[in-house]
Amino acid sequence: MQRATFEAPLHLRSGAQLGPYTLVYETYGQLNAARSNAVLVCHALNASHHVAGRYADAPDNVGWWDNLVGPGKPLDTDRFFVIGVNNLGSCFGSTGPTHTNPATGQPWGADFPVVTVEDWVAAQARLIDHLGITRLAAVLGGSLGGMQAQAWALAHPERVAHCVVVASAPHLSTQNIAFNEVARRAIVTDPDFHDGHFYAHGVVPARGLRVARMIGHITYLSDDAMEAKFGRAFQGAQEPGYSTQNIEFQVESYLRHQGEKFAGYFDANTYLLITRALDYFDPARAHGGSLARAYAQARGVEFLVVSFSTDWRFSPLRSREIVKALVDNHARVSYAEIDAPHGHDAFLLDDARYHGVMRAYFERVAGQLA
Amino acid sequence: MQRATFEAPLHLRSGAQLGPYTLVYETYGQLNAARSNAVLVCHALNASHHVAGRYADAPDNVGWWDNLVGPGKPLDTDRFFVIGVNNLGSCFGSTGPTHTNPATGQPWGADFPVVTVEDWVAAQARLIDHLGITRLAAVLGGSLGGMQAQAWALAHPERVAHCVVVASAPHLSTQNIAFNEVARRAIVTDPDFHDGHFYAHGVVPARGLRVARMIGHITYLSDDAMEAKFGRAFQGAQEPGYSTQNIEFQVESYLRHQGEKFAGYFDANTYLLITRALDYFDPARAHGGSLARAYAQARGVEFLVVSFSTDWRFSPLRSREIVKALVDNHARVSYAEIDAPHGHDAFLLDDARYHGVMRAYFERVAGQLA
Repeated sequence: MQRATFEAPLHLRSGAQLGPYTLVYETYGQLNAARSNAVLVCHALNASHHVAGRYADAPDNVGWWDNLVGPGKPLDTDRFFVIGVNNLGSCFGSTGPTHTNPATGQPWGADFPVVTVEDWVAAQARLIDHLGITRLAAVLGGSLGGMQAQAWALAHPERVAHCVVVASAPHLSTQNIAFNEVARRAIVTDPDFHDGHFYAHGVVPARGLRVARMIGHITYLSDDAMEAKFGRAFQGAQEPGYSTQNIEFQVESYLRHQGEKFAGYFDANTYLLITRALDYFDPARAHGGSLARAYAQARGVEFLVVSFSTDWRFSPLRSREIVKALVDNHARVSYAEIDAPHGHDAFLLDDARYHGVMRAYFERVAGQLA
Repeated sequence: MQRATFEAPLHLRSGAQLGPYTLVYETYGQLNAARSNAVLVCHALNASHHVAGRYADAPDNVGWWDNLVGPGKPLDTDRFFVIGVNNLGSCFGSTGPTHTNPATGQPWGADFPVVTVEDWVAAQARLIDHLGITRLAAVLGGSLGGMQAQAWALAHPERVAHCVVVASAPHLSTQNIAFNEVARRAIVTDPDFHDGHFYAHGVVPARGLRVARMIGHITYLSDDAMEAKFGRAFQGAQEPGYSTQNIEFQVESYLRHQGEKFAGYFDANTYLLITRALDYFDPARAHGGSLARAYAQARGVEFLVVSFSTDWRFSPLRSREIVKALVDNHARVSYAEIDAPHGHDAFLLDDARYHGVMRAYFERVAGQLA
């Protein structure tokens, strides 16, 4: 893990300024002499800069996209210089709500400024400058990471050769926003939230975080994948125990476990910030709702868009909206709709057809390197 | 509203006994001389015995299925004697968690016995006895009510001429159970739940109830219906306000309002009981998982099954499972899949094609009356 601190304040979409700020990041592979082989990987809700590999002192801590990124892998770090960066507002090292607000000397908490996908990209661009990279061979992300990849192509088309958007959408649907809002309400109304200043009370709003994560997991999995994994099986029993509060079904045990785990490591204020960044992302809005007009800004960037058949969080229809906007602009775009059973989570899994598409695309990107 | 008290205890599926118990109910229309024109309407999660009409002293309190049930309506109370009954465990009058536990002299709270769909039907059957009705012209229900209608046909086929199952399923999917579980965890982990004995503390677990209801509303509406109703419109503004806690999008205002309203009138222990009744319903389980074998018990009953194209809570595929099990048994079954945009909520709405199907079916039932 490395860190870079930027003294000049960042002007945020909200009108607020943030700075100095620090970004933590990791890199894999070697930057070539022409500085032309850099690929930026943007993370989604609960991930970080730790994209690939294992730490010597924590060998169980495998990078979140390690099946895709590494030597000989579809995004081959023998050929590319891959950068994983943690976003502003996170709880994994970059400047965020758990850090000290210079104005008060206390943790930012809920006073951390609201950051948008575009703000993250602006911060990332400074990191790319700092690394001496003028133009990225590719920017890549899944889900919320795919929104950052889109925002890169829209804000800095001259700095991005290829944009790879996986399991993403051009904006959240009303239902997506609704699920985010329920999760936020669960957190904010937890008495241990203390208006976002729970650090001073030595507690975390664990109840709210658990509920938020349980909702999340339902939307990450397909109905069929849940059915196949848990069905209606009882937890350690053949017959119902007739209880409203005990665990009865295996799926309940799974969800409670996921909730408990999440509440143990994730920051509640970060959760609020990141879900809001998701809600706000909507590049078409500044163009009268026309995504095609928005994508006119991405001139010269080549795209790969990937979706998964059973993803009901960001369904293939949402990816096709992006593809259509690109086609309307006569952009170069490849589109793959992968028939996979795992729902939204598929983008993190090692599916042969999916990884085959990614490998082929990055081979093409490598072939174009200066 | 009328009430009937039953002295003999009810033997519940869980092995517990409940009694004496009281059911509150309403009737509409006149029982004919042959006592052959009775139709029982079973309610879903948050409804009650108040199926149709308005109360003289509360004219805004319209019955929950008033668009379907009344003089000249699809279920015509000029021809049928319609019975609406409130289920055990409810908070609308029948014996439930807010009532006194005779063993303690305190409200039952979380100690109210777990009741199943089959238990409800057993209790309802006694009410039908009490009303002097041997055989129902029809039993009718939507969603969870449709599960009760199914359980009637399976437990008492000789007492049911027609079974009308609307927007229902032969059992909850894993995803359905998962949503119920998240809602329950939100309630149970609310500090104001007090292990289900919050009445004594003069509080209600309003935070949990709000979250539960918000989740519910997302699953009742189709993605498209939410999109059409709210889209991504901001609440009273053209631009985002950049806040994680304030209402930004209209859909958030809607959900918060629904949650607030629900927390003001619904009992948390009832919510737990009713969602568990949903979870447990699975008539195929006692038949090695074969719904067809289960439905062999419903000999002689005629069925109407109705589903709605955009219902993702209980999709048309779930209704087709019921239809297939009936066809496998050479039962008489009509099936209508209504193309309607409103999702699960469609079963409560006045849709011309839907109500046309219901009217035609009940005319057929009326034509068969003795």
